Amino acid sequence: MSVETAAPRITIAEAGKHVGETVSIPGWLYNLRRSGKICFPQLRDGTGVIQCVAVKSNLPEETFEALKNLTQESSLIVTGKLREESRAPGGYELDVEQAHIVQRVPEDDPYPITPKEHGTDFLMDHRHLWIRSRRQHAILRVRAEVIRAIRDYFDSNGFVLVDTPIFTPAACEGTTTLFEVDYFEDQKVYLTQSGQLYNEATAMAFGKTYCFGPTFRAEKSKTRRHLTEFWMVEPEMTYADLDDVKKVAEEMIVFCVRRVLDNRRAELKELDRDVSKLEAIQAPFHRMSYDDAVVKLQAKGSEIQWGGDFGNADETLLTEDLDRPVMVDRFPTGIKAFYFETDPNRPEVALGVDVIAPEGYGEIIGGGQRAHSLDVLLKRLEEHNLPKEAFDWYLDLRKYGAVPHGGFGMGVERFTAWMCGTEHIRETIAFPRMLYRTRP
Amino acid sequence: MSVETAAPRITIAEAGKHVGETVSIPGWLYNLRRSGKICFPQLRDGTGVIQCVAVKSNLPEETFEALKNLTQESSLIVTGKLREESRAPGGYELDVEQAHIVQRVPEDDPYPITPKEHGTDFLMDHRHLWIRSRRQHAILRVRAEVIRAIRDYFDSNGFVLVDTPIFTPAACEGTTTLFEVDYFEDQKVYLTQSGQLYNEATAMAFGKTYCFGPTFRAEKSKTRRHLTEFWMVEPEMTYADLDDVKKVAEEMIVFCVRRVLDNRRAELKELDRDVSKLEAIQAPFHRMSYDDAVVKLQAKGSEIQWGGDFGNADETLLTEDLDRPVMVDRFPTGIKAFYFETDPNRPEVALGVDVIAPEGYGEIIGGGQRAHSLDVLLKRLEEHNLPKEAFDWYLDLRKYGAVPHGGFGMGVERFTAWMCGTEHIRETIAFPRMLYRTRP
Repeated sequence: MSVETAAPRITIAEAGKHVGETVSIPGWLYNLRRSGKICFPQLRDGTGVIQCVAVKSNLPEETFEALKNLTQESSLIVTGKLREESRAPGGYELDVEQAHIVQRVPEDDPYPITPKEHGTDFLMDHRHLWIRSRRQHAILRVRAEVIRAIRDYFDSNGFVLVDTPIFTPAACEGTTTLFEVDYFEDQKVYLTQSGQLYNEATAMAFGKTYCFGPTFRAEKSKTRRHLTEFWMVEPEMTYADLDDVKKVAEEMIVFCVRRVLDNRRAELKELDRDVSKLEAIQAPFHRMSYDDAVVKLQAKGSEIQWGGDFGNADETLLTEDLDRPVMVDRFPTGIKAFYFETDPNRPEVALGVDVIAPEGYGEIIGGGQRAHSLDVLLKRLEEHNLPKEAFDWYLDLRKYGAVPHGGFGMGVERFTAWMCGTEHIRETIAFPRMLYRTRP
Repeated sequence: MSVETAAPRITIAEAGKHVGETVSIPGWLYNLRRSGKICFPQLRDGTGVIQCVAVKSNLPEETFEALKNLTQESSLIVTGKLREESRAPGGYELDVEQAHIVQRVPEDDPYPITPKEHGTDFLMDHRHLWIRSRRQHAILRVRAEVIRAIRDYFDSNGFVLVDTPIFTPAACEGTTTLFEVDYFEDQKVYLTQSGQLYNEATAMAFGKTYCFGPTFRAEKSKTRRHLTEFWMVEPEMTYADLDDVKKVAEEMIVFCVRRVLDNRRAELKELDRDVSKLEAIQAPFHRMSYDDAVVKLQAKGSEIQWGGDFGNADETLLTEDLDRPVMVDRFPTGIKAFYFETDPNRPEVALGVDVIAPEGYGEIIGGGQRAHSLDVLLKRLEEHNLPKEAFDWYLDLRKYGAVPHGGFGMGVERFTAWMCGTEHIRETIAFPRMLYRTRP
């Protein structure tokens, strides 16, 4: 980097490789303890936090005074020798030789987030600063790891990334949960709720594909599980059936959990996450039919009846005695979208599967096998009162080389919330968008 | 996979590992040659194309007849023994022992895309099928490789992926090129044009970050370089200046070009891409000031005057004698956004840089160093007639630990078009969205 430093520039994460050397670390003041002729500025630089030791007698007076009176989140470049220090949080300390204050946060307009407790609205209003705190930092790093793991899994298993469009022309499944956009010349388009229909086209071209991008739901839900804008990965496979969908879902989840455990141990510790719960996530997952799930739920006191969808409470009940996810399949056709394949032996159930995470994190994956017969799909569109013209291109996929195929969708933020053990999904994305939240 | 096959199931890409074995390959009929008692169905499965050899005397009559009369894009599973065949396009052939037709495309409603020439509108209307063709296949695979390379570059160079929001509250730089969305209760939000302002917040938290997602421009441009929806990667670095921005841009481009050359050679060949042009893309790139670029352009006959922005023709002129990209920096402040840092020695120029690709592909990167003084930014907002309140959170970044920082944005589709040597950007994304195109 070209910004001038007094000694070779390193990051805090690299400290271990430079013990005994004099280095410069640019960063921000995270915390400060003082004790007469010595002060301990804690520096953060985005890669970690390191304790610095500034001794009055070793420094020019103005440097020591500047450090001693420095305000939280002021930017500065610290230069000094690195030392191993087993009692320090990161394992190293820096003995300050020079300090260059880049910008001092003024006393009369101090950094608004202090160690005292703040309300959620206040923190959300200051989300652009809140993300500097250790906890938010840890969550967002886990999120980045999850995304990387998902991509690595699909890229190394023969799935081709093909991004599906955000602007979609027709309101395919009713407009109630779609955001409308003013396109050119009074045209209306809608923001995608799922790339699946397009994935079916790309899978017929590439065999196995996935899309991975933001997805939008105009649901007037204000729960701890809802965002209006969230990221979703959706794989789709041809010459595949419900069992393949389950197998890939299971493998991908195990792969991602493992990667988080391998690479984000420190962050999980920061979050006080009980990692034993994550270590338990191994194949095979529990498998259960919808029929059996209803019986189990009723036995546990739920009022669910055959034909109804699970509520959040049902999903929690269903997994409360389980150490790993449960894959529930064969749902009533009536509660599933028009494009599901039905069980050839039981036309009243759809070949769909939900993967429900333990610890109350609910449905993290929904998917299944798609109807691949043209006649069946035409009948379904009629039953669901959907305009055939809007699906012309989709029906083409059944006219020109139809094959059994299926896939699923997984929301990144719900998965991240599960990994982190966070109560509310809003902390799992940098700038959450919710019913009453579109800022900053 | 659980779909039943007569022999072990493989993909065409795996053929080389199974020579001499009897295997099953599920796919689609790509092409068919007939010659009396023998026929040659070419099978595609998304991983490649393989020629099969069906000999009448070796097959049950109905199998041979079915294959001989099979229609384009019918789906089928072929079983037979694999053989090396140096004259075959992929290097292998399959001697058919069994064939299971999954869905036969009817003669009276044949696959609409035939080997004859089709107009662009027709192909775009059938984009869901067009992506099955070899050329489109190759382009989209290069695109996936580019995306993977970009992510690998940033992930392995200390940048943390932090996704920035698609819904943005205010029309930050005027509403003329923004898409408006009906949010809840008569609120309006806008679709992001760039994650940069948010990136500046996340970079202050993580040191170095990047965002990578779809971006929207409501420009009424109908050129071969414009999409209304495209994907953009935007890195942002703290304690960094214009030189750092240029260095990372150069490194990233060289890394991505190398990866495409290493991993997508076959696709480039399919596209008749002159790979020597890509092999020439090495550091250091050409570097040139805006001042010198104007002089060079005028000498070449352009009517550009100091103070004006480059047109497409200028960008092409500027690189026509160059074998690698040129990085032009220090643009007139007047043609750059409010957030650019100015040159301390020359307040009339902004510390911005454009990277212009050779071969007429134009600007592929725009970026620079950001103004980091609160006073400067406040003055700029006034000069640009922008509402201060909308930028309150952004100004906070200059109050609480301001540091020199910068970054850039690169559009994936333009970069892919350059790699592939395609004339029009519309082929570089699966379902392009343009002024008059929102379907399929």
